[in-house]
Amino acid sequence: MSTPFKVDIDDMEFVFFDQLEIAEKLGATQQYADIDVDTYKQTFAEAKKLAEDVLSPINAVGDRQGCSLDDKGNVTTPEGFQAAWTAVAEGGWVAPSANPDLGGVGLPKAVDVGTLEFFASAAMAFMMYPGLSAAAARMVEAFGDDAYRETVASKLFTGEWGGTMCLTESGAGSSVGDNRAKATPAEGEEGVYLIEGEKIFISGGDHDLASNIVHLVLARTPGSPHGTKGLSLFLVPKFNFDFATGELGERNGAKVVGLEHKMGINGSATCTVAFGSEGPCKGWLIGKEREGIAQMFMMMNEARIGVALQGAATSAASYSYALQYARDRVQGTKLGQRDSEDGRVTIVQHPDVRRMLMTLKVVSETSRAACMRLAFMDDVIRTTDDEKLRDRLEGRSDLLIPILKAHLTDLAMDMASLAVQVYGGYGYTQEYPVEQLVRDAKIQAVYEGTNGIQALDLLGRKMRIKNGALFMEWMGEAQAQLKAGAEEGFKAQTEALGKSIGQLGACAMHLGKVAGGGDIDGAFVHAVPFLRAFGTVLLGMEALDQARVAKKQLDAGKESNLLKGKLANLDFYVAHLLPAAVAFAKTVQSGDKSCMDDYLFAAE
Amino acid sequence: MSTPFKVDIDDMEFVFFDQLEIAEKLGATQQYADIDVDTYKQTFAEAKKLAEDVLSPINAVGDRQGCSLDDKGNVTTPEGFQAAWTAVAEGGWVAPSANPDLGGVGLPKAVDVGTLEFFASAAMAFMMYPGLSAAAARMVEAFGDDAYRETVASKLFTGEWGGTMCLTESGAGSSVGDNRAKATPAEGEEGVYLIEGEKIFISGGDHDLASNIVHLVLARTPGSPHGTKGLSLFLVPKFNFDFATGELGERNGAKVVGLEHKMGINGSATCTVAFGSEGPCKGWLIGKEREGIAQMFMMMNEARIGVALQGAATSAASYSYALQYARDRVQGTKLGQRDSEDGRVTIVQHPDVRRMLMTLKVVSETSRAACMRLAFMDDVIRTTDDEKLRDRLEGRSDLLIPILKAHLTDLAMDMASLAVQVYGGYGYTQEYPVEQLVRDAKIQAVYEGTNGIQALDLLGRKMRIKNGALFMEWMGEAQAQLKAGAEEGFKAQTEALGKSIGQLGACAMHLGKVAGGGDIDGAFVHAVPFLRAFGTVLLGMEALDQARVAKKQLDAGKESNLLKGKLANLDFYVAHLLPAAVAFAKTVQSGDKSCMDDYLFAAE
Repeated sequence: MSTPFKVDIDDMEFVFFDQLEIAEKLGATQQYADIDVDTYKQTFAEAKKLAEDVLSPINAVGDRQGCSLDDKGNVTTPEGFQAAWTAVAEGGWVAPSANPDLGGVGLPKAVDVGTLEFFASAAMAFMMYPGLSAAAARMVEAFGDDAYRETVASKLFTGEWGGTMCLTESGAGSSVGDNRAKATPAEGEEGVYLIEGEKIFISGGDHDLASNIVHLVLARTPGSPHGTKGLSLFLVPKFNFDFATGELGERNGAKVVGLEHKMGINGSATCTVAFGSEGPCKGWLIGKEREGIAQMFMMMNEARIGVALQGAATSAASYSYALQYARDRVQGTKLGQRDSEDGRVTIVQHPDVRRMLMTLKVVSETSRAACMRLAFMDDVIRTTDDEKLRDRLEGRSDLLIPILKAHLTDLAMDMASLAVQVYGGYGYTQEYPVEQLVRDAKIQAVYEGTNGIQALDLLGRKMRIKNGALFMEWMGEAQAQLKAGAEEGFKAQTEALGKSIGQLGACAMHLGKVAGGGDIDGAFVHAVPFLRAFGTVLLGMEALDQARVAKKQLDAGKESNLLKGKLANLDFYVAHLLPAAVAFAKTVQSGDKSCMDDYLFAAE
Repeated sequence: MSTPFKVDIDDMEFVFFDQLEIAEKLGATQQYADIDVDTYKQTFAEAKKLAEDVLSPINAVGDRQGCSLDDKGNVTTPEGFQAAWTAVAEGGWVAPSANPDLGGVGLPKAVDVGTLEFFASAAMAFMMYPGLSAAAARMVEAFGDDAYRETVASKLFTGEWGGTMCLTESGAGSSVGDNRAKATPAEGEEGVYLIEGEKIFISGGDHDLASNIVHLVLARTPGSPHGTKGLSLFLVPKFNFDFATGELGERNGAKVVGLEHKMGINGSATCTVAFGSEGPCKGWLIGKEREGIAQMFMMMNEARIGVALQGAATSAASYSYALQYARDRVQGTKLGQRDSEDGRVTIVQHPDVRRMLMTLKVVSETSRAACMRLAFMDDVIRTTDDEKLRDRLEGRSDLLIPILKAHLTDLAMDMASLAVQVYGGYGYTQEYPVEQLVRDAKIQAVYEGTNGIQALDLLGRKMRIKNGALFMEWMGEAQAQLKAGAEEGFKAQTEALGKSIGQLGACAMHLGKVAGGGDIDGAFVHAVPFLRAFGTVLLGMEALDQARVAKKQLDAGKESNLLKGKLANLDFYVAHLLPAAVAFAKTVQSGDKSCMDDYLFAAE
């Protein structure tokens, strides 16, 4: 007794083809001109099949079994993970957008993100293995030495090897600059460093899915200063290998010495990795010395999009499960009707269940669109000749990433919890898949920079770039969209959205003044409410954009519940979710900093 | 490596003695005149000791081990539960407010609730065993037959036996009226019924903490109609017993046939209990035939207060753990200062961490006050001669219970999740206690009537009693409090609260009109947002009340961080939490019912 897993391919295609017109627009680029609509559709269909038939079945198993570690530092993943890995690797799904010369498929990033939503929705914990491998591969591709770049990147992109990112240490989580791991040039071996230190919370630090693991490790070379600017990035394999052929050599001194027991994502091995504690651990510099943090920032942007997407995936799974359950489950009678045995209805007919389902629907559909939009920006950035457009989109992407990382993951937790609520008592049991969604989702708000760190990034960096130009540009475009929307018949809705955007502007002004006056704490105490206000408006703008597209198609005579649902989404969003944006904005503009008083939270 | 568990006895005493002046007011009643301040203080101190030293240590163990079931239907509880049970029973903590003639201690309900917050905060899952026993005992005390009343109630109140409530069946959760369990008069045995059926989600359906288990079972006697009005309540023991002495006889045919695997509260055995499937199962009618649901309603009110209190307890634990961790954990430098090794600070100094801690503080402290107020109302109702006052308080309690049950438990989930956020990555691991809080908390929003059901109860019943008189009375009193608060110097804060209350009034008018016009769905689709708006205002009123009390003491020259913290609480609440009330109210008044359109959520 459970609920089958289903992905919403129709809505994904609506976003991809209709809302963002990605196929059409990328068809006009040199890089993607050859990919036709059928290829895209076939890709989504294959991804759906993989998600539903291969990945979904291992999700609960992975959660219940978890990973285990032997005394040699080898991690065993749960039952079925190896077969799933093979299917993912052979299907080219580790990184569909990667360079075909390095084992990728060469599809647009938007397709990568679209299909990844299906996969993460089906089995978030499992998907961290290929996700980390792809991220590591891209780092090596971008910054690695010619000597090993091709070999390593292609082993990773094809899934023959696995990859990790080793940043965090026990005393250095959000404060990466406090890293203590050391890298000392090895005597007599040109280009080789000896790595010493311990990293914690390393996802996929070891596993039995691939023949080798490649760690990308932040460490400090001799004489490097404290702080982030003293960090360099190293390639540290589990097994040493021949740079030219990739043939494996002897075991290197990087060893998993512990696994975390966690609230969720139990299928993903969260490892403590010791470097050089048992025998020497060799590493090779990636790029230049002391540029580790700059390189990581590139990866970090991708990783944060990835986590935002996990949030969207959790919301999508929450909606899909809750909807199916509510359609099947018979309980109670229609409101206002007498209690009677034959008058019982499925719970999908109860108003409050419909309110919950609609919340799940609109959050998951707007989250999906926001992630796809971000990925598509990346495609345009990489393919356009228009420098101004590229600059603008790079700036926009920089602005949006922290907002979506934090907002979509906070929402994901709420949506998973709401799915449990739709199920009632059954949802709290492991007979059904929704309680796992809650447990898995919580990490999203924590890793790749906590959501508090995202808000710092938004307020302290992104809002200040070019004196707030990124924000002003976004405001300008949003207002143009409202105007167009109003002309197309969405008068009340665009007015409400306009008010919220006005509030965002007022918040930005207010916070600028407070920080400008030297009250740093007074500004940053409102960083999170500001981010949440912004995120709430962003998804509202997605709802509007989708409604506009849908209305045009409906006006042209197309019949479709999906399209009608987009109009309902906008109305619901404006009535049920958008008011929170004004509430958050009120908080920001209150100027309250009561929590900063020294006597509060003082040790006893 | 973990965080020690601490209860906030100072704040509890502030609420009990200073804010609500319970000792003083109950001192004027006949029933509680003999209890002096020292006795109260000693009771809280003992409860603190029990919570911190005995209960807290078994909480994680209980979660990791869970319960097990043998093929005879016997449940084994986790390590340490038996010793804890003995301590609870011997200390008189199963129901401190119970009748001393039946094994209780005869303390006020307010003390019961205050100490229970400590216990549930320390070990929520464990505390369900004594909680259910006490609830069952009270039912038997109130409605049981003279033949067994004293025997059973005192066995339960003293912890010699355990009790359960058996309502839910697989097809009858929120719709209790769909119960199918049958009770047939046994031939030749006067007063005995044979019970047949299966109940699910029965907390403490069996355990090894007590020598006998007494189930209170809803079942239908021959010829009873469908629906809630055909239900009768039965006493169904695990072991039959001598009514006069309580001496145990042979095994009765009530047997646990399954345990749920759950997201949390693993220490609490959630059982499927089969009645009469293996050998006859005897039951004795409690009270009159077909009055089962009315009797259950009395219990339900108590149970709902109990769950609201669990919410407050979760929020309190979340705050306590997060605060201690934030005081200890060194990470990063003060905002605006350069990254440097020696400039590192504890995270309690970071503005966003303080924002989170303040949210935890104000939610937990106002939740505590709201629960204590409810319990104190019960004490006044039972002790006053003033009939008018009694009526008014009974009505007030009826109005508040569904709001607090739902709002405090929704908040509890958010607070537990926020505590994890304060910890960062460590909070997601089982090394620390906060991830368990999230998993345990989620059930609170589901059981004893889902939070959606609470909203139905509020809007469909409580708001309609005497044509809305309960609500109008509450409004009137709230406005008087605002007026007094404004005169005492809380002008801006009372204005903001006044606005929210005005919004609540507008919501009530609006919903009355919609429902009055026959659009039942259109009204009830906003039941939850209305409840949340109401709940948000209620806790704001507690923050105001506490600030007023604190200000008087501070003005009188008392020095205390706790008191100053109450002023900060109010400011923070008004700036950070109260705006949500207006947002919820906007949703309600939008009149939006976009989610009710038939084409939405239709089967494919």
